[in-house]
Amino acid sequence: MQFTQEESKDGVTERLFEVTVAGQVVPGVMWTPDGAHGPRPLLLMGHGGGAHKMFPPLAAAGRRYAKEQHYAVVAIDAPDHGARATPEATASFSQQLREHLALGGGLGGEPLKVMLLAAVQAVSEWRAVLDRVQALGEVGAGGPTGYLGLSKGAMTGILLAASDARIKAAVFGLTGGAPQLEEAARQISIPVEFVAQWDDELMPRAAALALFDAIGSSEKTLHANPGGHGGIPPFERAGWAQFFKRHLGSGAM
Amino acid sequence: MQFTQEESKDGVTERLFEVTVAGQVVPGVMWTPDGAHGPRPLLLMGHGGGAHKMFPPLAAAGRRYAKEQHYAVVAIDAPDHGARATPEATASFSQQLREHLALGGGLGGEPLKVMLLAAVQAVSEWRAVLDRVQALGEVGAGGPTGYLGLSKGAMTGILLAASDARIKAAVFGLTGGAPQLEEAARQISIPVEFVAQWDDELMPRAAALALFDAIGSSEKTLHANPGGHGGIPPFERAGWAQFFKRHLGSGAM
Repeated sequence: MQFTQEESKDGVTERLFEVTVAGQVVPGVMWTPDGAHGPRPLLLMGHGGGAHKMFPPLAAAGRRYAKEQHYAVVAIDAPDHGARATPEATASFSQQLREHLALGGGLGGEPLKVMLLAAVQAVSEWRAVLDRVQALGEVGAGGPTGYLGLSKGAMTGILLAASDARIKAAVFGLTGGAPQLEEAARQISIPVEFVAQWDDELMPRAAALALFDAIGSSEKTLHANPGGHGGIPPFERAGWAQFFKRHLGSGAM
Repeated sequence: MQFTQEESKDGVTERLFEVTVAGQVVPGVMWTPDGAHGPRPLLLMGHGGGAHKMFPPLAAAGRRYAKEQHYAVVAIDAPDHGARATPEATASFSQQLREHLALGGGLGGEPLKVMLLAAVQAVSEWRAVLDRVQALGEVGAGGPTGYLGLSKGAMTGILLAASDARIKAAVFGLTGGAPQLEEAARQISIPVEFVAQWDDELMPRAAALALFDAIGSSEKTLHANPGGHGGIPPFERAGWAQFFKRHLGSGAM
């Protein structure tokens, strides 16, 4: 794990890093309260399709969890996203996705397959990043770890939570419609808050509800709100902070 | 509005009262912070079937809203409940309900009809009680009013919110399956948090989701958790307090 850049702003230290996994450089970012030392809760944030580790709403949330709950927060670029994307590949995938969505019925077929393959790769990367991050004094190996990711970020998170016992609580949502996801969801037993948009143009309501239904956890909550894929209301985001506070606690400064 | 009894405990004043509506005496209870004066948010709490205005979890919540958010909180006995029930009528309705549920498919048929009729009567009673309560100095006419009621209490609340513009925010849930309710729900435009139990033995999942779907509000949130009709997890109750704080504010002492 190589830190390549560090900046402090408004009480939060932002560090860019790189981890090499299976021969590929995975670029990441970590937010911690300035001067953080000693173990604290760790939150992994998985970005959505077409976004990246420094996507502004994600970065703003990362800074907020570091500042207000004293967490260590980590985001990485998913395969073929952010610094790992070529403009050609991005354009071609977007075109493919648009054509698929024009058929109606939401996300599925080839684009969903591509996303699931990338999610499987991302799981190995997250596990490697988690190994490295837990070796840092300001995180520690024993602290509770959460995962927050929607849409494409939830696909990765569901596969990760099903296979890595270090993940203790998660917010997922805006996804469904794939038997592999439902199969993984059945293996999950940690507390989950699952968010669905009632009028999601990418994810048919029934597919999201079926995925929620499949989650194996005895504590799982579905939150559904009107609006499309991008329209999650702000109070839900505030609720996620409460959810993680409840399950991971708050960090010491 | 006649106050019949008053007791202060742990910073909260509990007053029993009676209001006569259409020739019937409606017994109620009001919780306010000790020494409350001046307008404050008002929360109406509708109890569920078989319960009553002093049902322990409801009374505990009422005291909590008075103490922690400085609200005035009012509960009344629904028709044929609490002090308005005869043991014979209660036993006969319970028997009818058990027989109906034994058929499977959840609440419906005759018991649902009886409940809806009672809910219509309860709406007139709530409106009359609201008139009286708003005339009290420690409540006031202009303050925001919310409604919290599940199951049978939600039936009444949905009909009330559809017809009385004084209700500004509501928590409903554990109900559905009646066209009259869906029709009323379409008239509602206030923020609503709607709670459903994923394995509700009284309310099939699809019926609850259809009722949530029918609510006309642009801000409405569905919260669903695993478990049966009586199994709402404690963190949901904490979330309702946040919901009302967001929409009704907090009261001054």
